[in-house]
Amino acid sequence: MMKELAAVLEQAGNMMLHFQNPAVYAKGKHADFVTEADLAVQEYLMEQLARLFPHAKFFAEEKKDNVLTDDFTFIIDPIDGTTNYFRHRSMSVISVGAVENRRPVLGAIYDPYRQDLYHAEKGKGAWCGDAPLQVSREPINRALVGLGTSPYYDELMALTGRSVGALMPRIADLRRTGSAAMELCDIAAGRSDGCFEWLLQPWDYCAGVLLVEEAGGRCGNILGGEATYEQGIPFMAANDVCYDDLQKILQDVKNGVI
Amino acid sequence: MMKELAAVLEQAGNMMLHFQNPAVYAKGKHADFVTEADLAVQEYLMEQLARLFPHAKFFAEEKKDNVLTDDFTFIIDPIDGTTNYFRHRSMSVISVGAVENRRPVLGAIYDPYRQDLYHAEKGKGAWCGDAPLQVSREPINRALVGLGTSPYYDELMALTGRSVGALMPRIADLRRTGSAAMELCDIAAGRSDGCFEWLLQPWDYCAGVLLVEEAGGRCGNILGGEATYEQGIPFMAANDVCYDDLQKILQDVKNGVI
Repeated sequence: MMKELAAVLEQAGNMMLHFQNPAVYAKGKHADFVTEADLAVQEYLMEQLARLFPHAKFFAEEKKDNVLTDDFTFIIDPIDGTTNYFRHRSMSVISVGAVENRRPVLGAIYDPYRQDLYHAEKGKGAWCGDAPLQVSREPINRALVGLGTSPYYDELMALTGRSVGALMPRIADLRRTGSAAMELCDIAAGRSDGCFEWLLQPWDYCAGVLLVEEAGGRCGNILGGEATYEQGIPFMAANDVCYDDLQKILQDVKNGVI
Repeated sequence: MMKELAAVLEQAGNMMLHFQNPAVYAKGKHADFVTEADLAVQEYLMEQLARLFPHAKFFAEEKKDNVLTDDFTFIIDPIDGTTNYFRHRSMSVISVGAVENRRPVLGAIYDPYRQDLYHAEKGKGAWCGDAPLQVSREPINRALVGLGTSPYYDELMALTGRSVGALMPRIADLRRTGSAAMELCDIAAGRSDGCFEWLLQPWDYCAGVLLVEEAGGRCGNILGGEATYEQGIPFMAANDVCYDDLQKILQDVKNGVI
């Protein structure tokens, strides 16, 4: 991880903690909010990353007209876990990924509450600070699975409920942090074994995908194939031992088989 | 909060953090585990509390033959969030409640990772260290609700799934920390607005009930009435604004109305 990039993320984290009671704005969809801190952190990140990577393009949660090309492109969530952030739950992170030829090449997730910097570059392993990360080896029946509720999409809530009912007897238990990027750090670090969300956006998972893959895990579309970054997808990640089993259960739920 | 009691909880928290990779034993039911640390912490707590309160009786998660009387009785969970504990998720607490005449009179929850001591005595308010706690005022449609999955009870998993499907369009979102006692601290501190679990045991909620009530919130049996401490109940807690609405939704799910 470039020292300059680490410094930018740490500074962005300080900005995030600096707002004590940020103004909160509704974005229109169910439970979808943005705060003045999201906007300020995103502006800072884009300014600084453009300085460090003059040819980079940008694709970001609080930016309009996101279009992905084959060029080197940062995919940014300035605060992943916005509701946690304004509810003072200390469970929100800054997620900066980069893709080239539409595949992730760089991922960095900064947790300002614990001052943990998770980072990965394609082919160079996954790290938290100086410590290498490795996914768990738990099989599906002992798996701890991160639940994504797709809170912005009313049409997916029944499917999410059915997924919970079908998963519980087949796994150890569920967790829901409210930050998809943090769930991916947890999987990369072996603190959980999988996660899923029926519709998740590229800025939520881009950096985390590289972390999980470089830590020995797998990420992809629940319905099949690799994760893509043009728009939101039914997203899942898991250690290599339980990925196929988790995917099969979720597909069976979707198809009404279980 | 008695200084001696605070010191006992802090020392128990140090013991908890001292075990790096504790031996884990299955207790028989689905996903129900105990570690050598749970047993060591419980033994230490019972020894020290018996010294400070010579007439106290004990009712505890890792103790057999728990019987509740009208006497002053400690209700203890040495490590609430055991799976979090052995998966290194930094989300487990020590929960020490006390009832007299079967009603809570004392509650203390210690989070050793953040060194936070949550405490309440009947009629004296709820506190985190020296800071007074106050529940939120969010209504049901903006409520963040802690999900209990009753992971040890196969027969409740479908009901839990249906609860998720019914709640999601009616609240802001769900969280699942994996520690019921921590969820109750979150409600008392205004970081979430409610929680529920279709079967929860007294040691999981006893201390937290007093915290939530002294912070201005409500706790009880989902099916009606106050929380009781003889055995597990369908448990819920919430701020005063959304309690009745959350209870109605959960009852409607149970009755198959929604």
